[in-house]
Amino acid sequence: MARRILTLTTDFGLSDHYVAAMKGVILAICPQAEIVDITHQVSAFAIAEGAYTIAQVYREFPKKTVHVVVVDPGVGSQRRPILMEAAGQFFVAPDNGVLGMIYPREKHKVRLISQSRYFRHPVSQTFHGRDIFSPAAAHVASGVAPARIGPLIKDYLRPASLATQRTGKHTWVGQILKIDRFGNVVTSFHIDEFPGLEQRDFSLMAGAFELSVMVRHYAEAVAGDLVVIAGSGGYLEISMNQGSAASRVACDVGAAVELKIW
Amino acid sequence: MARRILTLTTDFGLSDHYVAAMKGVILAICPQAEIVDITHQVSAFAIAEGAYTIAQVYREFPKKTVHVVVVDPGVGSQRRPILMEAAGQFFVAPDNGVLGMIYPREKHKVRLISQSRYFRHPVSQTFHGRDIFSPAAAHVASGVAPARIGPLIKDYLRPASLATQRTGKHTWVGQILKIDRFGNVVTSFHIDEFPGLEQRDFSLMAGAFELSVMVRHYAEAVAGDLVVIAGSGGYLEISMNQGSAASRVACDVGAAVELKIW
Amino acid sequence: MARRILTLTTDFGLSDHYVAAMKGVILAICPQAEIVDITHQVSAFAIAEGAYTIAQVYREFPKKTVHVVVVDPGVGSQRRPILMEAAGQFFVAPDNGVLGMIYPREKHKVRLISQSRYFRHPVSQTFHGRDIFSPAAAHVASGVAPARIGPLIKDYLRPASLATQRTGKHTWVGQILKIDRFGNVVTSFHIDEFPGLEQRDFSLMAGAFELSVMVRHYAEAVAGDLVVIAGSGGYLEISMNQGSAASRVACDVGAAVELKIW
Repeated sequence: MARRILTLTTDFGLSDHYVAAMKGVILAICPQAEIVDITHQVSAFAIAEGAYTIAQVYREFPKKTVHVVVVDPGVGSQRRPILMEAAGQFFVAPDNGVLGMIYPREKHKVRLISQSRYFRHPVSQTFHGRDIFSPAAAHVASGVAPARIGPLIKDYLRPASLATQRTGKHTWVGQILKIDRFGNVVTSFHIDEFPGLEQRDFSLMAGAFELSVMVRHYAEAVAGDLVVIAGSGGYLEISMNQGSAASRVACDVGAAVELKIW
Repeated sequence: MARRILTLTTDFGLSDHYVAAMKGVILAICPQAEIVDITHQVSAFAIAEGAYTIAQVYREFPKKTVHVVVVDPGVGSQRRPILMEAAGQFFVAPDNGVLGMIYPREKHKVRLISQSRYFRHPVSQTFHGRDIFSPAAAHVASGVAPARIGPLIKDYLRPASLATQRTGKHTWVGQILKIDRFGNVVTSFHIDEFPGLEQRDFSLMAGAFELSVMVRHYAEAVAGDLVVIAGSGGYLEISMNQGSAASRVACDVGAAVELKIW
Repeated sequence: MARRILTLTTDFGLSDHYVAAMKGVILAICPQAEIVDITHQVSAFAIAEGAYTIAQVYREFPKKTVHVVVVDPGVGSQRRPILMEAAGQFFVAPDNGVLGMIYPREKHKVRLISQSRYFRHPVSQTFHGRDIFSPAAAHVASGVAPARIGPLIKDYLRPASLATQRTGKHTWVGQILKIDRFGNVVTSFHIDEFPGLEQRDFSLMAGAFELSVMVRHYAEAVAGDLVVIAGSGGYLEISMNQGSAASRVACDVGAAVELKIW
């Protein structure tokens, strides 16, 4: 049988057995599964960070990939499990907004995961990653039709938009989406919104800092200088060549950033 | 050929090449191996933590899975390598008690890994994960009969029991098994030992804290309150909704906990 | 089709989506790829550490394995991407010396990766791991002949030798290559250079410490004592039984070490 790719994005970390429990459940149902870890180090309970992470990467994967995204502080409560079809792929997640950065980008259908025959039993109230999301995803990967998993729904949770707000003729407001491993501060401003920015006079304000130098790649910056760069996902980043911009700028995820262009 | 699942549980961490060396050895012997990481972040030399981790997760995996468990402070000394058959699966580990939470649960047979033809040569005295455990496991995954790996033994190391001790008509003593990534404090009290606990008057004592509220899932607790919950493995946990119970309770793995039920 | 093994060694860490983006690109090009993580926790921008890591482990892998090594502070600048053939395997990396510990060990050929038809488009200037190294490696794994990837070159970057320097009749100077997870301090002195060392009078000097006791395995050392041991890669290590030698010795990677033998 052909291999089926499943990806996992969670806040479970790597020191416990939780991720492996999901993998065991998946392989028991779908022996031909090829499981790829996106990351398990989403900050604990950080739904927006999980939403950013999966949105940056799903397009690299082949059609029919099944993405399992479990950042789930509401596990066991009334929040619902959902299955989304989008971009020729499948996404299994809690209905808490963790797929929210994909909704505006892709035509999509969302189903309630309601058919308990596709769950692992007994279903705990503390680990739906193992008991609901992984087995449902493995059944989809094995060829179970989405319609058999549960009915289409329209009232799934759409988180507040992260879209750039224009606040004046020359000003826009966005926010910090992510601090990456290298200390790059990723903002919600996308280079496609501001074509030709590198040839314009601009300033990007974050915390106490105002930046007006844009470079094309990290090594083009003077070591120790803060610069702006269009990162690999197209978002404007505040970066430092071989150093951590984040530890200098000292802003957290969610903080407002402002862009002025003359 | 059918895929063969091997899992790895070690204290090797993820920043060195040690885990990858094991994977290379396995794939060179058993090209159809599907290798699943349980965790490589068992605390260094922490045999009891490794024992807890593998015991929580092996049952999720299919029959014939080969589990390699290497938490091995005695590498190179007289401690022996063993192969256990239990639950239709195989376990390869040092004979230091790291399989000790499985012995009381499953009918099992233990063999000495003695046939050096199944080792990687030369055998170092510092890295049996690469030189003995991984190649022996890969040969078993490839179909080598356990009896060819080495003889049955009876005198393998059984660690002190973690079973709950009844200390009075209303009191039991157990211990802390694990602090997980979310700060849940996992105790050795299992819900199956105390059916109906959530409807009883009880108190669970850990360090300076005495808890008497039990919830079914994390989100049911008031944020910031310490509560008791039956975790996904059935053990009673001390938890906090969206916060770290462990940093509040401040007890380490191995510390005693007491349960009173009226 | 037969599985093709690709390994990944990077400084991307595990909390971002960067590694998963590489895996998606690889699987989209080469669906039969079996991807093995060597490590993603090379210290950020630490080329020498990446060079050490891949050099310790490639020999464990089967022929035709494709190793992707991305520690790439110069991404987007004039540094070139290269494909090396050595030991019956393939290595894809930036030409910054990260393959430098393999050059002196193996007969090898180095090619410039120049054929952009094997890239992911558009090619960013900040993430060649996704856009150049991964797709080129996946094409090689899929059977594209190396000669089609680009021309042979001779002027690839060879880093300064790490070879032991003899400084007197009885003295040699080397350096610290790595501090591992257990706190072992790995030096560049290789046991094959000093056969029979364990029966000689010697002293190994690192920082303020002078060591003259050699053991064969960790458990042979008295707990808390610093000892010398020939590690699993053959390099002399300064170790402590169940403790961190590195936190005692307090020397960093790159620091000089001296060996005297009488």
